Amino acid sequence: MRISVIGSGNVATHLAAAFKNAGHRIVQVYSRDIHNATLLAYHVKAEAIDNLKQINPETDLFLISVKDDAITSIAQSLSKFEKLTVHTSGGTDMVTLSAINPKAGVFYPLQTFSKNKEIDFFTVPLCMEGADEGITAELERLAQTISNHVYRVDSPQRKILHLAAVFACNFPNYLYEVAQQLLAKHQMNFEMLRPLILETAQKVQDHLPAEVQTGPAVRNDEITMTAHLQMLGDEPALKLIYTLLSQGIIKNENAGHGT
Amino acid sequence: MRISVIGSGNVATHLAAAFKNAGHRIVQVYSRDIHNATLLAYHVKAEAIDNLKQINPETDLFLISVKDDAITSIAQSLSKFEKLTVHTSGGTDMVTLSAINPKAGVFYPLQTFSKNKEIDFFTVPLCMEGADEGITAELERLAQTISNHVYRVDSPQRKILHLAAVFACNFPNYLYEVAQQLLAKHQMNFEMLRPLILETAQKVQDHLPAEVQTGPAVRNDEITMTAHLQMLGDEPALKLIYTLLSQGIIKNENAGHGT
Repeated sequence: MRISVIGSGNVATHLAAAFKNAGHRIVQVYSRDIHNATLLAYHVKAEAIDNLKQINPETDLFLISVKDDAITSIAQSLSKFEKLTVHTSGGTDMVTLSAINPKAGVFYPLQTFSKNKEIDFFTVPLCMEGADEGITAELERLAQTISNHVYRVDSPQRKILHLAAVFACNFPNYLYEVAQQLLAKHQMNFEMLRPLILETAQKVQDHLPAEVQTGPAVRNDEITMTAHLQMLGDEPALKLIYTLLSQGIIKNENAGHGT
Repeated sequence: MRISVIGSGNVATHLAAAFKNAGHRIVQVYSRDIHNATLLAYHVKAEAIDNLKQINPETDLFLISVKDDAITSIAQSLSKFEKLTVHTSGGTDMVTLSAINPKAGVFYPLQTFSKNKEIDFFTVPLCMEGADEGITAELERLAQTISNHVYRVDSPQRKILHLAAVFACNFPNYLYEVAQQLLAKHQMNFEMLRPLILETAQKVQDHLPAEVQTGPAVRNDEITMTAHLQMLGDEPALKLIYTLLSQGIIKNENAGHGT
């Protein structure tokens, strides 16, 4: 397939590389910043542009991977080409595109991407939605060339997924940071916690989280929880976070979600 | 070394197996429940007992791995043997033992253990503390026979580690569960989130968490955060958790911890 990539952020970069590796042709890479466009275009053997007037119409798919609030204006600029156009945003309804161009869809990768960190793209869940059945099927076929985990997800479901991803990724990473800062404050290295963090994530690869919950809250060990809150004494926000998350664990356990 | 294991929970089970694999002899396994003692004793070719009067004094180390509030009474029962005695508790001071028996120490594995889930013990951080330098050195040598990550950690530091582990393990696991429940409520499978969870933990294996924080909060994307809070509308506890963790991320980012 001939694919034009609009954007040069983490999602655009990883998707473009995956498509290129799978044998697709990346026609152009657009970024407002020609430096960023050039960097990515070089990797995927595409042309770099920084002006939508330079768009090459000889393409099969516009992949819009930009900030949510820039999607509409870009879609408007591209609509005259009447090509299949998708965005990659978890939190943006498909109608944002399909109101502008009926050949619309969503190509949402449910993963956290970093520059400079390779990822096995075939493990990345890809969530597809098309404005009609033909488009959905076409996007599914395309997605299957780069991933073994392709799902059909409509816009309301995708918004839930995006919210769930905040709980499953962004918030745990913040809690890792809290832990790291606690250690640093007491002259200990974050290295000590890394195996624990990895094992915690590995455990839920073949269990449900409730089945493997450990710690003072699930045991309702009030002595330890009280001691921990005392240790956090000078950090009211962390105390509140500790209390709320512990209450959530206790509540789930009592609701019989635990084992 | 001849080691007697007091307790048959997850920590006792994994430690006993690691010691056995490393060529140590497990003399006895004690549990109040003879069934549990027998299960573990069978695995490590030891004698199972359910009464501390049956303790065999021909041992080099008593490893006490029981609930925190049972440590003292067990240590009192064992003190007459005048053997090296350690506990495995993150939250319990060494003095709990050394007040009873001067040959005391702590052997704290910083990992989350589950029954039925094997673990490469050589990756487990082991935190050693002895009542004197000789004991600390002896415990370090012992620990190095089963792990490549042996640390000296005193009681105040160990309590911080234990608290940090709640933030790095127990709370993330709870947030995985929140995400799983959000998906289940909308007819989606937790399978979709597993790669994201694993990648999030893998990222911090060679980065600091602040360097790889993603999501709406670190971008200060208020539109998305407002939409997410609306989606959580009927869950006041989750709304509060969402708000507090997002505020924490924003605060850290503004403090320049981010990249």
